[in-house]
Amino acid sequence: MNDAVQRDGGEGAGPKASLLIIGNEILSGRTQDTNLAYIAEKLGSIGVTLAEARVVADSEAEIIEALNALKVKYDYVFTTGGIGPTHDDITAACVAKAVGKPLTHHPEAMDRLSAHYKRQGGEFNTMRQRMAMTPEGAALIDNPVSTAPGFIAENIYVMAGVPRVMQAMLDGLLPNLKGGAVTVSKTIRCSLGEGVIAEPLAAIQSAHATVELGSYPGYAASGFSTQIVLRSKDERALDAAKTAVIEMVSRLGGEPEPL
Amino acid sequence: MNDAVQRDGGEGAGPKASLLIIGNEILSGRTQDTNLAYIAEKLGSIGVTLAEARVVADSEAEIIEALNALKVKYDYVFTTGGIGPTHDDITAACVAKAVGKPLTHHPEAMDRLSAHYKRQGGEFNTMRQRMAMTPEGAALIDNPVSTAPGFIAENIYVMAGVPRVMQAMLDGLLPNLKGGAVTVSKTIRCSLGEGVIAEPLAAIQSAHATVELGSYPGYAASGFSTQIVLRSKDERALDAAKTAVIEMVSRLGGEPEPL
Repeated sequence: MNDAVQRDGGEGAGPKASLLIIGNEILSGRTQDTNLAYIAEKLGSIGVTLAEARVVADSEAEIIEALNALKVKYDYVFTTGGIGPTHDDITAACVAKAVGKPLTHHPEAMDRLSAHYKRQGGEFNTMRQRMAMTPEGAALIDNPVSTAPGFIAENIYVMAGVPRVMQAMLDGLLPNLKGGAVTVSKTIRCSLGEGVIAEPLAAIQSAHATVELGSYPGYAASGFSTQIVLRSKDERALDAAKTAVIEMVSRLGGEPEPL
Repeated sequence: MNDAVQRDGGEGAGPKASLLIIGNEILSGRTQDTNLAYIAEKLGSIGVTLAEARVVADSEAEIIEALNALKVKYDYVFTTGGIGPTHDDITAACVAKAVGKPLTHHPEAMDRLSAHYKRQGGEFNTMRQRMAMTPEGAALIDNPVSTAPGFIAENIYVMAGVPRVMQAMLDGLLPNLKGGAVTVSKTIRCSLGEGVIAEPLAAIQSAHATVELGSYPGYAASGFSTQIVLRSKDERALDAAKTAVIEMVSRLGGEPEPL
């Protein structure tokens, strides 16, 4: 319990983000999400901590409930999925309701998409115009891959679900996000089981409150191995904890190996 | 909006489950979760719909808040992660608080682990005994891979985070879960962009309320392609909607290809 509180303290400084993954295809198991890990790493690189993620179905009630919960709790809410032209793409309408704004055709988004279909020779039909709909007054998120933009309403950042498009949108956004001190991570692999190191590791955690210590078991062909991950925004504290972990593992004959 | 309501109606019958993924390593992007897709498919195979998933950090407050929200909303709550012997494994203590029971050493779990470490020649120390702690009166979930059991408290099913262990636990649980009518899925690939099929697809969705129609764009070397996924618990309705989709795609020259 004390550890948990300390861990929150160590990790908690700086802006926090949440991710809302929207899509039946993730919840059915048909599609393996990879967006969470990408977003977590990119946000981490500018000192924004991804603190929570949720996956909900293409259901208006569920999406709005999640948006309302997350937008007051975190500095940023990122969403992925549900911004295409088809009937199952309902994210923009849900965000509009969550922020209490009318859903309108965004003039700049209309221009970009209209030009895109003119170049392509496709019809800019009513359903495609759905991709230009945002809550009134939203700012656009550029889509260098396939034109149809994401958007920002309040602290909600609405992005595509297709990884290649989402990644391009996020990469473009990053320089404009307010970040914080970056959490640095170090990993020590050792040949001891978790049960052997658990007690001295807990003692090290108690003595290094600003460092988050995680323990992850592995099953290598050669037998037990455990990866001890140290994370902190304070590099000096991180190094001190790392030294303590290496000493502890060595003392127990566990062949510490920094990765 | 009508579509969203109908989609909930089509998918919503039968037991619903939620998944709580516990672990800083997922939220930092260090570890790619694969448990969600596995659990979704296995639950789907017995007619239990995975309706929501959440990922939270190793934080007591966050875990308890999520458990309390999910356990009243869904028939089942599955959790993964946080049941090892180290200080960062706090799931059992959080579940005990969420169900209002004291956290105790489960006698049968103590016996299993004690015998395990006797066989292995390892010490069954205090930290390893943490893996035998459950809310009072919990039922155990067998762990044929590495002995340390999961457990069931109220409608919360607590499983390991390591995929191989979680999978063995879930496979053992499945025959004892109350399932429902199974959702059957069909996929039609076509060579048309989403914007071309969006309007007729919405009309088909409106006419087939018990079938959930999803549209997923792809970018193949040969140009645009879209996968239309049909899901329903009613096979006859599914076949009728599938016929309508194939006719629609053919009419537009989109080379429908059932996958």
